[in-house]
Amino acid sequence: MAGVYGLLPLGLKVYRKIENIVREGMNSIDGQEIMMNVLQPRELWDETGRFSEISEIMYQFKDKNGKDIGLAPTHEEQVTDIIRHHIKSYKDLPTSLYQIQVKFRNEPRAKSGLLRGREFMMKDMYSFHVDEKDFENHYKKVGEKYLDIFSKIGLKTKYVAADGGIFSKYSHEFQVICPTGEDTIYYCDKCDFAENKEIAKVKNDDKCPKCDGKIIEAKSIEVGNIFPLKNKFSSAMGAKYVDNNGSEKDLIMGCYGIGLTRALAAIVEVYFDQENNMMIWPESVAPFDVEIISLEKNKEAEELYEKIKDKIEILYDDRDISAGEKFAEADLIGAPKRVIVSEKSLKSGGAELIDLKSGESQIVEIEEIASVL
Amino acid sequence: MAGVYGLLPLGLKVYRKIENIVREGMNSIDGQEIMMNVLQPRELWDETGRFSEISEIMYQFKDKNGKDIGLAPTHEEQVTDIIRHHIKSYKDLPTSLYQIQVKFRNEPRAKSGLLRGREFMMKDMYSFHVDEKDFENHYKKVGEKYLDIFSKIGLKTKYVAADGGIFSKYSHEFQVICPTGEDTIYYCDKCDFAENKEIAKVKNDDKCPKCDGKIIEAKSIEVGNIFPLKNKFSSAMGAKYVDNNGSEKDLIMGCYGIGLTRALAAIVEVYFDQENNMMIWPESVAPFDVEIISLEKNKEAEELYEKIKDKIEILYDDRDISAGEKFAEADLIGAPKRVIVSEKSLKSGGAELIDLKSGESQIVEIEEIASVL
Repeated sequence: MAGVYGLLPLGLKVYRKIENIVREGMNSIDGQEIMMNVLQPRELWDETGRFSEISEIMYQFKDKNGKDIGLAPTHEEQVTDIIRHHIKSYKDLPTSLYQIQVKFRNEPRAKSGLLRGREFMMKDMYSFHVDEKDFENHYKKVGEKYLDIFSKIGLKTKYVAADGGIFSKYSHEFQVICPTGEDTIYYCDKCDFAENKEIAKVKNDDKCPKCDGKIIEAKSIEVGNIFPLKNKFSSAMGAKYVDNNGSEKDLIMGCYGIGLTRALAAIVEVYFDQENNMMIWPESVAPFDVEIISLEKNKEAEELYEKIKDKIEILYDDRDISAGEKFAEADLIGAPKRVIVSEKSLKSGGAELIDLKSGESQIVEIEEIASVL
Repeated sequence: MAGVYGLLPLGLKVYRKIENIVREGMNSIDGQEIMMNVLQPRELWDETGRFSEISEIMYQFKDKNGKDIGLAPTHEEQVTDIIRHHIKSYKDLPTSLYQIQVKFRNEPRAKSGLLRGREFMMKDMYSFHVDEKDFENHYKKVGEKYLDIFSKIGLKTKYVAADGGIFSKYSHEFQVICPTGEDTIYYCDKCDFAENKEIAKVKNDDKCPKCDGKIIEAKSIEVGNIFPLKNKFSSAMGAKYVDNNGSEKDLIMGCYGIGLTRALAAIVEVYFDQENNMMIWPESVAPFDVEIISLEKNKEAEELYEKIKDKIEILYDDRDISAGEKFAEADLIGAPKRVIVSEKSLKSGGAELIDLKSGESQIVEIEEIASVL
């Protein structure tokens, strides 16, 4: 159905690599992984008024017993409910909980494939602090980690100031510059100044308000955001802690999202070569490190595959189909390196090793390929 | 809400280990992992008549555009839809696709915690074959792999014959014998004969129909099942392949499920020691290999922790709370081994190493613990 996509084996392989890089990143800043739920009871969301407030984007229906249920588009209510049952004292703080889970948005017009779906995978983290200062330190730390994570999965992102909504002065988005993006940002060509169109007070070609650089307008894809929640949820839901003077205070919260399936789609937008109808995945998330193509089904390719299959991730194509079909499919699968073993390459002294990113091609002796890869 | 459970950090750690053992098992029998969807359009399920047929257990509602949507309790329709777009020839067969995903059942009376929820995690695999014979070979292979997987996660399961429904003579369930189980099975105390109550023609104390053993009636928990689907879905949905004589035939299918959150709950049912209010996880899925408890916060425990923390998974409890609290929590967390470093143990020559399963306890020199663990 529109806006709802599955992942087939190769897409899933890429997705799992993204997921693992994100998970390692969250663990490295002391995030603790949990698993919350899709089904949400109305009562919990009535505590913050959001069952009505976001009913436009939340799938809502009644179960057999006539109870109102929603499908979670986000998890502030559930995570605050968990925390109010487990955090009592300033000694338990700060703490960060995150999950990697399917989320839902009742989009009337789903479009742009995985970029804006009705069902999609998210990593969402929520942090809890004794005060604003502790929150702000953590917010900064998560922001830096996000830039690092996106860079690891091959996405160069801008750290873009955005609207904070009704309860905060600011939030930040991680935007990938891309002509097919739905967002518009203004960034400086020299410094790190960047603002989302919604709040921008600059326009294209303006002088940067922070340095002598020039402002550039660009289309972009939002792959992550971080958001101060202050005490909005803790106050509404009674999530308090006892401070070191023995008095009860509201928890200060932040939330931090990464769109995992959207990041996968953004990588395709950035790395797909329209002209040559060819995908070249960044090495960190490629479904395979190398594709070995055996033309005329020769024994040298087989031996090479057997020799290196346990060391790196290989797609070995020895099917009995035409060379043209093999190359066309290999172009779409997008392993960053390709080894072609053919009568011709063997006559030239080995296999043809192609680095798809640089386009460089060389003949390497079969015995040496393992050490070159 | 009733029947809907999240997993907190320690439960999630156990869950992920179960998930990984199951994933490795599926990959080892050439299963290819994919990710299908929660949201299901009515039209797809109308092709088999199941949107009406299983409306009792499928959450169903309308989206903004008035379209009927269901939350997937199982994925035969979607996987058959995928396959009919990708499989053309006998050369593409056999093939098996599996996923690890959240599933939903509109249970009017959710009970027994994770054992029978409204939202739960499943591994479901679907296989596609040219004929019954090829299917049956695969069915047998999956059955053996399931016994192996359950044994790896610490569950001794019976391979139990069960009802095949309207389109097959048989199916099989993997049942863990457990007094709190909801199912009843009859098994032989000598051979591998075992039947679910629904189809059993034997009763307690009968002579086994296959050997001279005795039939035993037992309560049990179903953690997996495997099911021949014949051409039920392929025929209704037009999922065909061209055989080696050029004629079109229906694909022959099977499906294979493991209840992942239910398996986690079953492990707790089997391994939790009610009498001592103590959990001892099987090593393969334990959240930690060892818990180090430092009493009186001594430097020897700290040094030991630093020395071995990168080699094994350790929970290190150096909190400033009473020994009683630490032990009570350690009993519930259930790391299979415990190391206690206290003034008393140090005076006796080292740390107290306890194997919780055997109950054996010994004093080991601090320097030697790493090699003993």
